[in-house]
Amino acid sequence: MSETAIAGYDYGRVGPSPVGKDDLEALKAAVLFGPEDEAALRRAGEVLGDQVEAILDVWYAFVGANPQLVAAFAGPEGEPVTTYLDRVRPRFGQWIKDTCLRPYDEAWLAYQEEIAERHTPAKKNKTDHAPSIDHVPLRYLIALISPITSTVRDFLARGDRPAAEVDAMHEAWRKAVILQVALWARPYAPQLW
Amino acid sequence: MSETAIAGYDYGRVGPSPVGKDDLEALKAAVLFGPEDEAALRRAGEVLGDQVEAILDVWYAFVGANPQLVAAFAGPEGEPVTTYLDRVRPRFGQWIKDTCLRPYDEAWLAYQEEIAERHTPAKKNKTDHAPSIDHVPLRYLIALISPITSTVRDFLARGDRPAAEVDAMHEAWRKAVILQVALWARPYAPQLW
Ligand code: HEM
Ligand code: HEM
Repeated sequence: MSETAIAGYDYGRVGPSPVGKDDLEALKAAVLFGPEDEAALRRAGEVLGDQVEAILDVWYAFVGANPQLVAAFAGPEGEPVTTYLDRVRPRFGQWIKDTCLRPYDEAWLAYQEEIAERHTPAKKNKTDHAPSIDHVPLRYLIALISPITSTVRDFLARGDRPAAEVDAMHEAWRKAVILQVALWARPYAPQLW
Repeated sequence: MSETAIAGYDYGRVGPSPVGKDDLEALKAAVLFGPEDEAALRRAGEVLGDQVEAILDVWYAFVGANPQLVAAFAGPEGEPVTTYLDRVRPRFGQWIKDTCLRPYDEAWLAYQEEIAERHTPAKKNKTDHAPSIDHVPLRYLIALISPITSTVRDFLARGDRPAAEVDAMHEAWRKAVILQVALWARPYAPQLW
């Protein structure tokens, strides 16, 4: 359905990841990501599902307010490329749902590697034919764990669940983001990853 | 005083970082790290200061329970090198205090780069003449943001401060760890950092 309508969203249509299931399990253990987090993410998906546009508004405003971040969406003259920002946005929205609702299986691992490469010279800009810089700096990828996590709490709280439940969903979200950023670091440093 | 007695702890005695003050400010903004976090870290330093050994017990137990992490402290036969673990431990303890109490100035930036390099082939093992693998995998460096942050909350709560204050200290700690891991990623991917 609507997923197939998202330009450049290639979940299920990319080659296998070089990262195996065992690597993923070891990484999950290091992040303290367990079955209760998976369950909490499912519930978070229900709460966040119809708030995706509002979440993206907050994130895009944050990026827009930070020149060092906008730079990754900028063209040769340094001006933000609106079509690029607009085309990435629904994929980002879908990622919120995928993070909460997809099983973290081989198809998921494969798309993690694809997202990773889309932040590096291997694939950045290609999906959207964007005239922009060739990679997202690794330090900002890691740094954004902070706002991408802290800003989600208010949206989780709007679901009218008990505070302990909001905390559990928020912790699961946090771990899921850290897990993914760890996976996305691979093509930045394949030898030392 | 006791700092100078920590073997291999070279704060204030290493060359300048390639990362400048402006880079640091841009990174702090991306992490949402502000003056109120600095203030909260000072208070966290007071609460954590005399609990350092107990915190290290928790972290060392976590590493010890995870073979994929112990590997970074293992010798050629795969067995943990006790002298290596023991020598790093007081530096790790001092890092807890430094994270809370040091100003994030040029000396601090310089030592961040030193810690970064000590996780990579440039300098790992050298300080302690350890017969171990030549780098800490980047993915685990990022992954450990999770346990290094979540485990600190109980210790912050033992300070008998109001819950809101514990939350503020915990958030500041979290951002400080993310900020440092972002800095430590530099020598892993100097071109794409
Ligand atoms: C935790 C941090 C981050 C998350 C969760 C994240 C998430 C995403 C997602 C889901 C996509 C779309 C993937 C797809 O094509 O299906 C994307 C693409 C993109 N992101 Fe990020 N991102 C993060 C950090 C950053 C940072 C720090 C920047 C730069 C300031 C950035 C800039 C971009 C750009 C330019 C694209 C489009 C890449 C392309 O050309 O295909 N991202 N990101
Ligand atoms: C957030 C994550 C991490 C933090 C905050 C951290 C912190 C530190 C600190 C403060 C030191 C001592 C620095 C000094 O010499 O003054 C250190 C050293 C070390 N860490 Fe980490 N670390 C992290 C992740 C990891 C991981 C994932 C591993 C591997 C499993 C690891 C293995 C080591 C080793 C082997 C050393 C000794 C390096 C040497 O030979 O000098 N660290 N770490």
